[in-house]
Amino acid sequence: MTEKRTAVLLVLDGLGDRPVPALNGKTPLQAANTPNFDRLAAEGQSGLIDILGPGLTPGSDAAHLALFGYEHSQVYPGRGPLEALGAGLESRPGDVAFRANFATVDEDLKVIDRRAGRVFTDEEGRALQQEIDGLEIDGIKIRFIATVEHRGALVLEGPGLSGQITDTDPHAVGVKVLDSEALAPDAEKTAETVNKLTKITYEQLKDLDVNKDRVKRGLPPANIILLRGAGKHESIPTLKERYGISAIVIAGGALYIGTAKYVGMGHIPVEGQTGTIDTNFAGIAEQAVQCIQDGHDYVFIHIKAPDNASHDFNPDEKVLAIERTDEMLGLILEKVADKIVIAVTGDHSTPVSVGAHTCDPTPVLFWSDFIRPDDITSFSEFDAARGALHTLRGIDIMPMLLGYAGLIEKTGA
Amino acid sequence: MTEKRTAVLLVLDGLGDRPVPALNGKTPLQAANTPNFDRLAAEGQSGLIDILGPGLTPGSDAAHLALFGYEHSQVYPGRGPLEALGAGLESRPGDVAFRANFATVDEDLKVIDRRAGRVFTDEEGRALQQEIDGLEIDGIKIRFIATVEHRGALVLEGPGLSGQITDTDPHAVGVKVLDSEALAPDAEKTAETVNKLTKITYEQLKDLDVNKDRVKRGLPPANIILLRGAGKHESIPTLKERYGISAIVIAGGALYIGTAKYVGMGHIPVEGQTGTIDTNFAGIAEQAVQCIQDGHDYVFIHIKAPDNASHDFNPDEKVLAIERTDEMLGLILEKVADKIVIAVTGDHSTPVSVGAHTCDPTPVLFWSDFIRPDDITSFSEFDAARGALHTLRGIDIMPMLLGYAGLIEKTGA
Repeated sequence: MTEKRTAVLLVLDGLGDRPVPALNGKTPLQAANTPNFDRLAAEGQSGLIDILGPGLTPGSDAAHLALFGYEHSQVYPGRGPLEALGAGLESRPGDVAFRANFATVDEDLKVIDRRAGRVFTDEEGRALQQEIDGLEIDGIKIRFIATVEHRGALVLEGPGLSGQITDTDPHAVGVKVLDSEALAPDAEKTAETVNKLTKITYEQLKDLDVNKDRVKRGLPPANIILLRGAGKHESIPTLKERYGISAIVIAGGALYIGTAKYVGMGHIPVEGQTGTIDTNFAGIAEQAVQCIQDGHDYVFIHIKAPDNASHDFNPDEKVLAIERTDEMLGLILEKVADKIVIAVTGDHSTPVSVGAHTCDPTPVLFWSDFIRPDDITSFSEFDAARGALHTLRGIDIMPMLLGYAGLIEKTGA
Repeated sequence: MTEKRTAVLLVLDGLGDRPVPALNGKTPLQAANTPNFDRLAAEGQSGLIDILGPGLTPGSDAAHLALFGYEHSQVYPGRGPLEALGAGLESRPGDVAFRANFATVDEDLKVIDRRAGRVFTDEEGRALQQEIDGLEIDGIKIRFIATVEHRGALVLEGPGLSGQITDTDPHAVGVKVLDSEALAPDAEKTAETVNKLTKITYEQLKDLDVNKDRVKRGLPPANIILLRGAGKHESIPTLKERYGISAIVIAGGALYIGTAKYVGMGHIPVEGQTGTIDTNFAGIAEQAVQCIQDGHDYVFIHIKAPDNASHDFNPDEKVLAIERTDEMLGLILEKVADKIVIAVTGDHSTPVSVGAHTCDPTPVLFWSDFIRPDDITSFSEFDAARGALHTLRGIDIMPMLLGYAGLIEKTGA
């Protein structure tokens, strides 16, 4: 009988890179001191992943859906539901969800500040939230959550909703808040509801004490909510339904949490986990170990910091982010190496020389104490190109992890 | 003009493995002395196969369908038709077939021995067989064959049959023979026929001289037939229809013979060929040479012994099974090397440390005296990972063999 293990997916966001002159022509992954990654590469198998296919540059949501074993084109609900779930707002099949911003408009609903000054206290957020959350318009229920700074998420719940509508956020100042428009015949009612909601939010928020107080303090009032990224939460087969597994996400960024929850993972928050280089690496390791010891079948750990460094064109910070993640992995291996099968990879390449996602394949290593090792002895884009895994696709990763972990039934007899 | 060759597929069942401590950390394939495999690896191309795809653990039937160029999910008829064909029983599209057991029941049809003592002479088998074979129930004809020990196969022939019914074999003793139940609305009639058949087999067999004689000798009477693995023989495109080729199977195990016959191969039996380490390797080589000299387009040779050794956790026997197969290949190469294109591979990995099928890729080598060699000089899981073929899927093997053998027309003009 195949012994069962916990399948662990460790994603360093934007990991893949190109040679960097400031790093003596090495990639950040090559330049970083990564004893744990290198040990696993030496004892395991390496390869490259064309996450969505050769030449395609993955967005973060599409990339993660692929790594979770889903075809983006078949299950992508739009950004709204993923962000809403990531923000901790309930969203269910049939709901339509949006990313939301507090903004400042004049009496003609012309946008003065798209972020209403960006600075909000938790109390302000809660006070504003309770004016919107729980509203009902024409039989459609509104759920709203204020998250960080001016940001939030909003969900419509009711019969006959459509995600095929345009943003109310004009993505510019000095112009009026947009009317949402239906992009499909059956989306008329949803667009109408959203346009009523825009006016209602203005009426509810404009004279609030919170806003009077903000103006007194020289801050723009949060007197409207702008919506973007409408998407309908579709009913997709969850990981539990597809594989019968109990899956957990440990991530700091809302999009990653939301995408994981969309496919049915449970989210376990870690005190101090953020999307930055100063995230609580030790706390993440501790929580991962706990999940593995608790016998969860699958644990997804997401580290955002390498991607941020790339977007900031900062090779040294990317090296540091990689080294801290390697150290974190060391803490996990110390405790539960004999209980796991692990894949370490990125969701896409974000070269520090480019500052944006590119189509370069991303390196991956697979390790368990029983996996046949290949000849590769360190983890990098260049070494991985010679590994036994050759070139994989993103959607291969989930079945490989679960297959080696003994969590997929034999096909046929 | 491309010169035509015979495409030869040599499958060592369960070939792929993991490092084995008792073999100084080598896999059985690495530890075995295989001058012929190594010669072909040196002169040919190596690679790995994810038979059904990354992470998927193949069953033997699904694996062989893939190696024959078929998608398991599209053509798999259930175990019954494959086993019936392998047992030498005719089965055609529209028929429903089963694996069958002689068993011993009491007067209430409660199972006393699922295998009726397991020991049967050929004469007993024939006598029991002729009581069942040729029966007709409600317009459905019964074909039955007794094979080895208590085993047999049974086919229903007639209009409107369905394979969507449950087993009558309770897979336990002390309980009554089960009523077959319909799993689909159009399967009611088939289930009813099977349930009548159960009662008829009891009436036909219980008072037979054969059984009186068995009881006298202290053996349990074979007074009923238990059925399992119902499957409908579907009409699928045969190899002849798809490629216009004449294909032959040389195998010892019923499942492999049956799966090959299901896709249209002709079975040529070899005296003394079995599924064991003591199969007639020289006879198999001789028959393969004959088929190649006779100009058949495709010859599939199946050697079961390596898989058996793995299921028994016996690395030394696996090494021996591989060495004997290598020697057998030498006999073939001596005679007809210039007439063939050959792929040597496994149908899945069965590590001796696990004793069961796993998802580890399986090594493959392709050879013909004209194929471009790569750098690999010996045949193993580790060497193959660095070969020119990189990672293939099972369904790639048939077109590659036929392509190099000059048996597939150019695509396009």
